[in-house]
Amino acid sequence: MNGTKSDYSFNESIILQHVGRTKIANPDSVNLSFGFPAPDLLPIEALNHAASAALIRDNVDALHYTGGKGPELVKRWMLQRLRKFGIEADEDCYLAVYGANQGIELAARVLLNPGETVWVEASTYFNALHMFRYAGAEIEGFPVDHDGLDVDRVESALKQAVQSGGALPKFIYVMPNFQNPTGASMPLERRRRLAELAKYYNIFILEDDAYGELRFEGAHLPSVYSFAPERVIYLGTFSKTLGPGLRLGSVIAPNEVIRRMRCLTLDSPPSPVTQEILGWLLYNYDYDAQIERLNSRYRARRDAMTDAVRSEFGDAAAYTRPEGGFFLWLAFPRETDAGQLHRLAEDRGVSVVPGNPFYAAGGNSPFIRLCFSYCGESEIKRGVKLLGQAYFEHLNKL
Amino acid sequence: MNGTKSDYSFNESIILQHVGRTKIANPDSVNLSFGFPAPDLLPIEALNHAASAALIRDNVDALHYTGGKGPELVKRWMLQRLRKFGIEADEDCYLAVYGANQGIELAARVLLNPGETVWVEASTYFNALHMFRYAGAEIEGFPVDHDGLDVDRVESALKQAVQSGGALPKFIYVMPNFQNPTGASMPLERRRRLAELAKYYNIFILEDDAYGELRFEGAHLPSVYSFAPERVIYLGTFSKTLGPGLRLGSVIAPNEVIRRMRCLTLDSPPSPVTQEILGWLLYNYDYDAQIERLNSRYRARRDAMTDAVRSEFGDAAAYTRPEGGFFLWLAFPRETDAGQLHRLAEDRGVSVVPGNPFYAAGGNSPFIRLCFSYCGESEIKRGVKLLGQAYFEHLNKL
Repeated sequence: MNGTKSDYSFNESIILQHVGRTKIANPDSVNLSFGFPAPDLLPIEALNHAASAALIRDNVDALHYTGGKGPELVKRWMLQRLRKFGIEADEDCYLAVYGANQGIELAARVLLNPGETVWVEASTYFNALHMFRYAGAEIEGFPVDHDGLDVDRVESALKQAVQSGGALPKFIYVMPNFQNPTGASMPLERRRRLAELAKYYNIFILEDDAYGELRFEGAHLPSVYSFAPERVIYLGTFSKTLGPGLRLGSVIAPNEVIRRMRCLTLDSPPSPVTQEILGWLLYNYDYDAQIERLNSRYRARRDAMTDAVRSEFGDAAAYTRPEGGFFLWLAFPRETDAGQLHRLAEDRGVSVVPGNPFYAAGGNSPFIRLCFSYCGESEIKRGVKLLGQAYFEHLNKL
Repeated sequence: MNGTKSDYSFNESIILQHVGRTKIANPDSVNLSFGFPAPDLLPIEALNHAASAALIRDNVDALHYTGGKGPELVKRWMLQRLRKFGIEADEDCYLAVYGANQGIELAARVLLNPGETVWVEASTYFNALHMFRYAGAEIEGFPVDHDGLDVDRVESALKQAVQSGGALPKFIYVMPNFQNPTGASMPLERRRRLAELAKYYNIFILEDDAYGELRFEGAHLPSVYSFAPERVIYLGTFSKTLGPGLRLGSVIAPNEVIRRMRCLTLDSPPSPVTQEILGWLLYNYDYDAQIERLNSRYRARRDAMTDAVRSEFGDAAAYTRPEGGFFLWLAFPRETDAGQLHRLAEDRGVSVVPGNPFYAAGGNSPFIRLCFSYCGESEIKRGVKLLGQAYFEHLNKL
C-alpha cells in the first residue's frame, strides 16, 4: 500500500488465521484448535449480578476515564492473590492491562528498539512472536523439553554472547506454567536458575503466566518473578479463569518499567466499566471454587484427550502430559507435513493448529497443538479419532 | 533505567499531569481543566439495564474473545450513524477500538517509521503529540485560526516540500470539529481543500472527530473523510456522549489501513463485554435525545463561560466562541507566563490547563484551556472569577 509503513513484513495471514477465532469454517467441526475456557463454566450469572451491583454502587464514576472504586479493588485483590505464586509486590509495581496480550505488547514497546534481540521458547505463543516481530526484534528460539525451557542452553548462549561480544537478548520470553503450546512446566530449580541468569547478565525475563491458576496436578511453584523481582515482568490474566471477553489482565514489574508502560497507556486504566464489575465480583464470589470447578473439568478432559491420543496414535505421536493449562502438543515423525495434516483434519471435521506459527523460524514443524479445555470428553474423543484418520491419510500421501 | 528503551525521550511528567485525571489535588477546586462530560448526563441507568439485558441475551458468548452479537450490532449502528457526517463506508473499512486514543496510536504505529514527519495543528491534542513522538516522528505544527487549521499554510508548505525535495508528511492530524484545545471548526471549503491536498500529494489525513456529535450551533458539516475516503483515517468515540469509561470508539479508513490495524490488535475486538452492553443500548435507547440533552446543557455552559470571561478579562483575553465541543481557549498577551498563571489559579482553587502541552515545540505559550462541559454554570462563574484574580496577581508579578 502506497504510503504505509515499509517494514511491515510479518505474516498477517497466519496470525489472522489462528488468533482469537471462536467461529470456524465448518460449524459441525470438533474444535480442538483455540485456547478457550469451557463455555458452561464461565460465570455469566455472577457477572450479570456483579454488573448490576457495581453500576449501582459506583454510579457515574464507573463511566469516568479513571473509573470508580473498581480499578483499586481489582488491584488490591490481585496483589493479594499473587502471593500464591510467591509474588510480593507493591502497588507501584502493578498495572492493569487489556489481557496478557497487552502486557506483551507494552513490554515489547517499552523495552525493544528495532534490531535488538529477544529470546523465546521454541515453540512459543504466536501472538508474542507477532508482537516482537512488529517491534523490529531479532528473535532467537531455545528448545523446550518435558521441563519447559532448556535453561542450560540459555546459559551457554549467554556465556558465548559475552565471550564473543555478541548481542545479549533484551529479554527472554517464557511461560513457566503449562507452556503454550507444549503444556510443559518448569521445575523449581530451572525457575531459580533462569532468575539468577537474568540478574547476572542484567537482562529481563518476560514471564507469561496466563495459565498458572489452572494447575490440576502437583503443587503450585513459585514464579520466576519471586526469585528476581527487579528483573522480571510478570503477566497474569482473567481470560482463562473468568472469560477472555473481559479483556483484563495485570503486569507486575519494576516500577521503572510500570511507569513507562503507564505512559504508553496514557495513565488511563483499561475498561473502567469492566473493572467496576470485576471489582465487585472478586470480593463477592468464590473465585477459588471457580478455579476448582475449572481444574476438575480440565483434568478429566486432559485425561480423555491423552487416552484418545494413545489409542489412536500409539507411538506415532509423542507428547508431554501437562499438569495444567489448556494444551496437548503432539510431536509427529520428522517427515510429517503438519500443514497438510491440519488441512486434512479440517476436511474431516476437526480443527487443530499446526506447529509452524509457534516458531519464529517458520518452515514445516511436525507438530499439532490440541486444546482440551473447550470441548467435552466425547467431542474430544471424536476429534482425536478424526485427526487419527487424517494422519493415516496423510501417511499414504507421503 | 538500565536495559530499557534508549530513545524514550518525551516528557512523561507533563503527560501524566494532564491526562485522564478526574481527581485533582484540591477537591474543593473548580475543575475547568479536563475534558469530561457532565456527570449527571451520563446514562448510567440505561447502561445498567442494557448490561443485564445484553448478558442475558448473549450469555457466555459475551465472554468470548470475539464477543456475541454486540460487536456486530455496534458496527452496524455506527456505520449508519456516520452518514450524518457524510461517511458512507463498508464494514471492511470499520474497526472498533478502545476510544479515539487507540485509533491515534494504531494510525501512528501502522503509518509511521521513526524519523518520518507528521503535521499537526498548533495547538493540538497532547495525547496525540505524545503518541507521534513515541513513534519517533518529527512533528511540525501549522497555525489554527478562527476557522481551524490554516489550509493555505499547509498548501504552501506542501508545494515547498515538493519543490525543495523536502519530506512530505506521512499524514496530517486534524480535528475539524471543535478542535481541542481551541474549539475552532473548519468550514466546508477548508475541509474540501484539505481532502484535495491529501489526494494530490498522496498523503493521509488523520481526522479526529471526538466532539463531532456535540454541535450546539449551526448545521453539521461533512467530514474531511467524505471528500477523500481513500486518503482519510476517521476517528469517532463514545467517550464524549455516553462516557469515557466505556473505552469504545471506531476507526473508518481504507481497508488496507484497517487490515494492518486489525493485525496489530490481533484481530480481537475491544472489550467484548462492553460491546455486548452497548450493542443492546444503541438499539433500545434514544441516543438522539441524549445528544440533545448534552448539547442543550453545553450550550448554556459555554454561554456562562464566555459571559464570565468577557466580564472578568475584557480585552485581556481573546477567544474563538466554539459552536460545540468542550473547550474555550483563552489567548493572553504575549508576555503572559501561562505556566505561572496556571499555578496561581490552582492555588486560588481553580484548575485549568496551560498552553504548553498542546504544542509540539514546547516553550511558553500564553494560552489557557478551559473546559465548560464538566461544571455547572455557577461553578464556571466562580472558577473564571478565580482565574481572573490569578491573572491580575500574575500581572503584578511581571
